[in-house]
Amino acid sequence: MGKDNLSLLTDFYELTMAGGYFETGHAEETAYFDLFFRRVPDGGGFAIMAGLEQVIEYLSNLRFTDEDIKMLNNKKIFSQSFLNYLKDFEFKCDVWAVPEGTPIFPGEPIITVKGPLLQAQFIETMLLLLINHQSLIATKANRVVRAAGGRPVMEFGTRRAHGATAAVLGARASYIGGCIGTACTVAERDLGITALGTMAHSWVQVFPTEYEAFKTYAELYPNNCTLLVDTYSVLKSGVPNAIKVFDEIKPKNPGIRIDSGDITYLTKRSREMLDAAGYKHCKIVVSNSLDEWIIRDVLSQGACIDSFGVGERLITAGSDPVFGGVYKLAAIEKNGTLIPKMKISENVEKLTNPGCKKLYRLYDKDSGRMIADVITLADEPAPSGDDYTIFDPSFTWKRKKLSNFIAKELRVKVFDKGKLVYKTPTIDEIKTYCLAQTYTLWEETLRFENPQTYYIDLSQKLWELRTELIKACQEE
Amino acid sequence: MGKDNLSLLTDFYELTMAGGYFETGHAEETAYFDLFFRRVPDGGGFAIMAGLEQVIEYLSNLRFTDEDIKMLNNKKIFSQSFLNYLKDFEFKCDVWAVPEGTPIFPGEPIITVKGPLLQAQFIETMLLLLINHQSLIATKANRVVRAAGGRPVMEFGTRRAHGATAAVLGARASYIGGCIGTACTVAERDLGITALGTMAHSWVQVFPTEYEAFKTYAELYPNNCTLLVDTYSVLKSGVPNAIKVFDEIKPKNPGIRIDSGDITYLTKRSREMLDAAGYKHCKIVVSNSLDEWIIRDVLSQGACIDSFGVGERLITAGSDPVFGGVYKLAAIEKNGTLIPKMKISENVEKLTNPGCKKLYRLYDKDSGRMIADVITLADEPAPSGDDYTIFDPSFTWKRKKLSNFIAKELRVKVFDKGKLVYKTPTIDEIKTYCLAQTYTLWEETLRFENPQTYYIDLSQKLWELRTELIKACQEE
Repeated sequence: MGKDNLSLLTDFYELTMAGGYFETGHAEETAYFDLFFRRVPDGGGFAIMAGLEQVIEYLSNLRFTDEDIKMLNNKKIFSQSFLNYLKDFEFKCDVWAVPEGTPIFPGEPIITVKGPLLQAQFIETMLLLLINHQSLIATKANRVVRAAGGRPVMEFGTRRAHGATAAVLGARASYIGGCIGTACTVAERDLGITALGTMAHSWVQVFPTEYEAFKTYAELYPNNCTLLVDTYSVLKSGVPNAIKVFDEIKPKNPGIRIDSGDITYLTKRSREMLDAAGYKHCKIVVSNSLDEWIIRDVLSQGACIDSFGVGERLITAGSDPVFGGVYKLAAIEKNGTLIPKMKISENVEKLTNPGCKKLYRLYDKDSGRMIADVITLADEPAPSGDDYTIFDPSFTWKRKKLSNFIAKELRVKVFDKGKLVYKTPTIDEIKTYCLAQTYTLWEETLRFENPQTYYIDLSQKLWELRTELIKACQEE
Repeated sequence: MGKDNLSLLTDFYELTMAGGYFETGHAEETAYFDLFFRRVPDGGGFAIMAGLEQVIEYLSNLRFTDEDIKMLNNKKIFSQSFLNYLKDFEFKCDVWAVPEGTPIFPGEPIITVKGPLLQAQFIETMLLLLINHQSLIATKANRVVRAAGGRPVMEFGTRRAHGATAAVLGARASYIGGCIGTACTVAERDLGITALGTMAHSWVQVFPTEYEAFKTYAELYPNNCTLLVDTYSVLKSGVPNAIKVFDEIKPKNPGIRIDSGDITYLTKRSREMLDAAGYKHCKIVVSNSLDEWIIRDVLSQGACIDSFGVGERLITAGSDPVFGGVYKLAAIEKNGTLIPKMKISENVEKLTNPGCKKLYRLYDKDSGRMIADVITLADEPAPSGDDYTIFDPSFTWKRKKLSNFIAKELRVKVFDKGKLVYKTPTIDEIKTYCLAQTYTLWEETLRFENPQTYYIDLSQKLWELRTELIKACQEE
């Protein structure tokens, strides 16, 4: 996965622009690009950052093969000297990024790239693709896992994923968001995520009777014995046959899975039957087109469920399958001077933040909870003091004085002039960090319906720069 | 892409079942599995088959590496003899499939696999993943292209695709569905699909003025000169600057692209300005979160558009991102006797069709249009004659007599005992076939809102077999 050369996995316009910068002497000007997103999917209060490890892999392997050059040459629009430049391409940018697993909010520069304009522009498409995909799925998984209220959630969506990488990296992002494992076997081989699963309906159909199918399975896999009980009738045959087999084989961790029908009713009745037969420790797993809303709904009805298998609606983020990360020019250095750049739009949400910036997260010293994020210009000191004022950048009369907080810079340096200077945490570290960080959010931000909008404020200096650029643009 | 070993890209339960069949002597029993889908996305009248070429690649490369075996061994539930079997795995199944680009309908066996139970079961996950993904996107692209009414549509979604293969194979599926090209450069290198694109807003921002940005670009790429005119103001600066540059450089195929704002209004006014300046041949391209409904809407308002760039809502099939293909056991041979299998469900739509079957498409001899599809048992003759009765399998009093038709068997044999016996058409052949076939559907099936349900009928013999199995199950 992703080990093939993907340097040409890019919008073609990155190449026409690269060629243009090369031919006109702009290639080596230092540019600053910010990657940020504008809207949390599903109307949620926050998203989860994911995909940085794959960004690192991509940037570490960014070079153009002879085959790439040949294809570009065939387009008959690029000069030989530009193609030679690509042949010898060496990534030289600085990259700062929010670590994976971090809760992120609209408008924040979650990645900033500083470097030669040609290079910093070129990597746009792939950075967006990687961050958009995994942040989308990690965010969704985190919602599903929170809806399950502590019960384990397994990612079961491989067959409905949008292609092979969507399956594997979707399993990765789901794990970061809080799932405990995946059905996708190759994710265990390549990423160390536990692969899980027992049987399909066809297994049950192949044997003359459901009882024989269960018994055969339990004999073979006594330690991994979750029996699929809905091929014929859950209550009339599935659960009774499962109990009979449990009595005979005494598997270590008995379980049943229900994949159709009325989950609330069937799990309640199944629980009663299992308990009455002495299998209080038998786990009930459910699957079948689940998402955070259905999980919350069946649990609120008292469904007796020990764990969930969540498939198509997680692996495609079915209810809102687009994560709208964008990558915008923030500044450019000309002759040693930093010229902040800003995209002006009729639409307030589409205004960008100019200049070279830093991103801070302010935590309450007593509770440890997040209070606000503050974006400053890079040369400003960190927010501090017992009387720090934040204000809404659009409605500036909305002000708040903060005290008793710790300001933590949220981004780490990942590449220094093209050299990797960051050690990616293990996937288990990322997952643990994600869950811990999620619960430093207030419940008002965690809820699904009408979550409280978290404060994302600009420093006074950044706000002034932005106001000045808007004004200059209007006067033109 | 997909050249790495993906044999373990499978739900883990395929492996526990495979191990189970191996240990209990069922592995070599001949099984028949059907792949079909139940619901057309977006409430459409039909879907487009895609992904078969990748299924062929997958099955042709299906083998287990030492690394795979090691990972499975670490699970500590598989026997050494089973792992040795996997080490020497050789695919031996027969596979029949509907060719790519064909309009397909719910309930039809678009792929059938016949072969050793262990193998025929094992390949389920990847067959579903590949067919579900590309059929989803090809179906969506076909809708978007039809909405555009003959105007070219380009696939522009790479940055919002669910991972790398979703981008590349999504570009492939979009092309099959009718797009003329893609922004995804690597799709040209690897699949021969034309990659297109010119500039982003950042190009315009890097130069001191929009005029300089346009002029520089036009000088460099006079034959590929679509200028992005909405960085500042489409009508006040973008179009006037574009005209000025066209006057000076006289590019061969001048074009402008509008990526924001009121498309209808802006394209009408831009068209007037371009025409007045003598650029009637200048193409107007639009992009920005388009889909089939928005395209239909702006065209009905008289928007002046020559071509469309469609991104996130195509590459994710945003409005309905799950293609629900399933893979079900249809029959099994025991001691030389074929035993039809059927999954009975409370839900009529979830009944499967038992036995070994053939799929025919009936075309009207005069108009060449599709009349109905008929599923028969494999040993029946093809539908023929001037008095052939079809009937609805659920509401059997709904009958229709057909005459003057040609019955065409819809599926081709792809693998014969594991040997590839099918030559994949080129992608341009598939695309051409797809568009031609689409227009053999009646307009009533093509429309987006409440399309006419196309007839998918069972032969009398298949219907009787199904009825018999339902009855037998009820009597148990």
